[in-house]
Amino acid sequence: MNYAMIRYMLGWVCCIEGIFMLMPVLVSMIYREGSGYAFLAVAVLCGTLGAALVFRKPKKRNLAAKDGLVIVALCWIVLSFFGALPFVLSGEIPSMVDALFETISGFTTTGASILSNVEGLSHTSLFWRSFTHWIGGMGVLVFILAILPLKGGSSLFLMRAESPGPSVSKLVPRMRTTAMILYSIYFAMTVLEAIFLLIGGMPLFDTICTAFGTAGTGGFGIRNDSFTSYSTYQQGVVAVFMVLFGVNFNLYYLILKRKFRQALTSLELWAYLFFIAASTIVITFCIYPSVGSRFQAFHQSFFQVSSIITTTGFATADFNQWPALAKTILVTLMFIGACAGSTGGGIKVSRVLIMLKGAHKELRLISHPRSVRKVKMDGRTVEHDVVRSVNSFITIYIMIFALSVLLVSLDEKDLVTNFTAVAATLNNIGPGLEVVGPTGNFASFSTLSKFVLMFDMLAGRLELLPMMVLILPTTWIEKSGKISRKKA
Amino acid sequence: MNYAMIRYMLGWVCCIEGIFMLMPVLVSMIYREGSGYAFLAVAVLCGTLGAALVFRKPKKRNLAAKDGLVIVALCWIVLSFFGALPFVLSGEIPSMVDALFETISGFTTTGASILSNVEGLSHTSLFWRSFTHWIGGMGVLVFILAILPLKGGSSLFLMRAESPGPSVSKLVPRMRTTAMILYSIYFAMTVLEAIFLLIGGMPLFDTICTAFGTAGTGGFGIRNDSFTSYSTYQQGVVAVFMVLFGVNFNLYYLILKRKFRQALTSLELWAYLFFIAASTIVITFCIYPSVGSRFQAFHQSFFQVSSIITTTGFATADFNQWPALAKTILVTLMFIGACAGSTGGGIKVSRVLIMLKGAHKELRLISHPRSVRKVKMDGRTVEHDVVRSVNSFITIYIMIFALSVLLVSLDEKDLVTNFTAVAATLNNIGPGLEVVGPTGNFASFSTLSKFVLMFDMLAGRLELLPMMVLILPTTWIEKSGKISRKKA
Repeated sequence: MNYAMIRYMLGWVCCIEGIFMLMPVLVSMIYREGSGYAFLAVAVLCGTLGAALVFRKPKKRNLAAKDGLVIVALCWIVLSFFGALPFVLSGEIPSMVDALFETISGFTTTGASILSNVEGLSHTSLFWRSFTHWIGGMGVLVFILAILPLKGGSSLFLMRAESPGPSVSKLVPRMRTTAMILYSIYFAMTVLEAIFLLIGGMPLFDTICTAFGTAGTGGFGIRNDSFTSYSTYQQGVVAVFMVLFGVNFNLYYLILKRKFRQALTSLELWAYLFFIAASTIVITFCIYPSVGSRFQAFHQSFFQVSSIITTTGFATADFNQWPALAKTILVTLMFIGACAGSTGGGIKVSRVLIMLKGAHKELRLISHPRSVRKVKMDGRTVEHDVVRSVNSFITIYIMIFALSVLLVSLDEKDLVTNFTAVAATLNNIGPGLEVVGPTGNFASFSTLSKFVLMFDMLAGRLELLPMMVLILPTTWIEKSGKISRKKA
Repeated sequence: MNYAMIRYMLGWVCCIEGIFMLMPVLVSMIYREGSGYAFLAVAVLCGTLGAALVFRKPKKRNLAAKDGLVIVALCWIVLSFFGALPFVLSGEIPSMVDALFETISGFTTTGASILSNVEGLSHTSLFWRSFTHWIGGMGVLVFILAILPLKGGSSLFLMRAESPGPSVSKLVPRMRTTAMILYSIYFAMTVLEAIFLLIGGMPLFDTICTAFGTAGTGGFGIRNDSFTSYSTYQQGVVAVFMVLFGVNFNLYYLILKRKFRQALTSLELWAYLFFIAASTIVITFCIYPSVGSRFQAFHQSFFQVSSIITTTGFATADFNQWPALAKTILVTLMFIGACAGSTGGGIKVSRVLIMLKGAHKELRLISHPRSVRKVKMDGRTVEHDVVRSVNSFITIYIMIFALSVLLVSLDEKDLVTNFTAVAATLNNIGPGLEVVGPTGNFASFSTLSKFVLMFDMLAGRLELLPMMVLILPTTWIEKSGKISRKKA
């Protein structure tokens, strides 16, 4: 384990967080809110600590795959810890556990909240809450990679550990340039959404927070009713941009490079759009009798579908009251999630496709035992490694899911609440059903359950492996160089 | 596709079913019940049809893997169709859909019922209902293989398609002897249970039906309250035998051969016993406050745990009223299921173990990228084919599960009912929660939902592949010899 490198990267995360935290301080100056002092204090603390940690550069800059995973996991935990402090210091979320829950929910772009009265927060805190979504959406380490020159191999491992999807492809040979391109597209699209919202007459503060929440596919709202009270145009803009932020960012790069054909033949893109279209249509018919207007039924259906499949979690309707079929479709979408390489969470459309293709191959092998078939996607063979890692992803996913539901059910809430609370956090969505439905929140869970759900949010955002490696004993005890001879 | 062989095997299934159906006719003579005529009529019909179909022996007796799967799927459908007829003819279950549901539930050893008043059935029908469990438990084709001399390869494919578990091992070189040994152990253990029940003072008729239900891990009771009103001793005997019938039958053969060490070092056995012990202990603590007596809490916990993990479905308590943690544990056990090579259903302990070992291997590869590791079980390497087929099993399982829940939710029942109804049928358990809980039944579902659940029961009992191959278009359209060039 390269401990020096872990220290160094943690230091950079602290530095960057300190700088990011000056943004809410600015907001507090505009709105003349006292909570800004808490943010300033933590910003100074982060900056000082960070500077101390990055002062001595590590000699060995090489990272193994394991180091990359451990660094990413630790960075996100440190990031969340310092991100939560201002809430506690300003007294706006007095409980440290709750503040940590809210901040992890923010950075992981989950959007699950323990607050029942969001409107009671200061503008400063509301801004920070939404800003965490934007930071977490593309990833803080990707941001550091964009500004920090690291050796090629090291940055690939870090990027791979933080970016969603079964495989990460470099857009350009240099990792740093790739990270810069991704962040530029991310920034440009956020600005674009903000412009559309401003045209629709949304106040500037609301616009910025909403754009952050949409871009990171986070879902923290700044009103108690989430998105219900905004105009139909504003809701429509957000719905469309949620879908756009759920697309693999590589496709936008291809479009910028005028490789339209390559971008538009992506199977994942079409499968993703198909899931959205099919679900929207069925749910429109489902809720039409209760909504009354055909347009409103479609509008609400589309907004909720795009919010759930992209794992954003904004809501314009209390879908907990919808018919069983509509709810079941939404729960199914919770698991599918958005495209790989997007800011969305969930299992990811590409993983679902690889699983289905793998199973289809096995079924065809029964009819044609002698044929040699490989799983293909977009014309290219999916490497055997990727297929295998998708399978173990699913296994670990099911295991974490089952254990989490078991632990959360100690709270004696109803089964649907427990099941959807875990689904909503592990897939980084936010709202579930029943107690944790769009009009509810996560405040009533016990401290144990909150920690379980925090773990799930981090595991979901980092796609399981970093958190698993972090808690695996073999990661820590095998540094003596001896390789244990346990059988797999 | 070897159509002659399909005809021939279907013929044999009809013959055997005709003979089996003489048993309830015998019962009707003892109890002087008119419903016996319906069974006699169908027995004659089956016998005649069967004789006509087996009259001309097929020239080519070779079977491909695909043929084996198709034969097994068709045999089970034909078996269920004729098995349902007497219920309709005797007027005891007038609706053909309901009768078919009940019979499929019987043969697949699910035990899900559409009857609210079981005690209203004649002894003849009750006997047949429980007898279907016993026939389906070890498998009707395995029975035919035990009495019919077939070529080696053909019978292996049939046995593999009908027997539960990721891989079937021959006990002895000859398949026919293997089938005979399995059925002998099955028969002997059923008799043993019956003796224990008779000692406890259970009436003979109840004993026979209960023994059939336990042996097949089916779960049809002959009383409206399932197993609640029997004595603690009788409940205890059934609980222990449910656990025993959930063990891989190969282990019993090893014990008979005095290979104790080999039998007792099976990882699957210990994992299975561990799941039972751990769940029983936790649930005992869970329900102790409401039950009051420490012994009764343990007793009820053990009975329900062994009933659910072996996918039997007998109940001595309405576990729908239990605390959330207890219910969540039971739902988790529903999916794990019993051991491979037993009469139980579910995903099977061995598949869960192979999945976990595969994931663990992947995680260890991160720390030791250069180590070559294979998934091992009981000291032997698990073939790559088996690991791959387990993975595609899980994918198909999840897909069928999700589609079934979506279709069933058209009925607008609550989510827990829909989810557990599919879980209870796909895993061949019987009762779920809420509407389909231990005190409820499946009568209120729509015809579409009933057909979906029937498909799930068959798919679950035959472990997905036969039913998937049956409905896959490529199974039927590629007989022209041309191999389609579709990409997998």
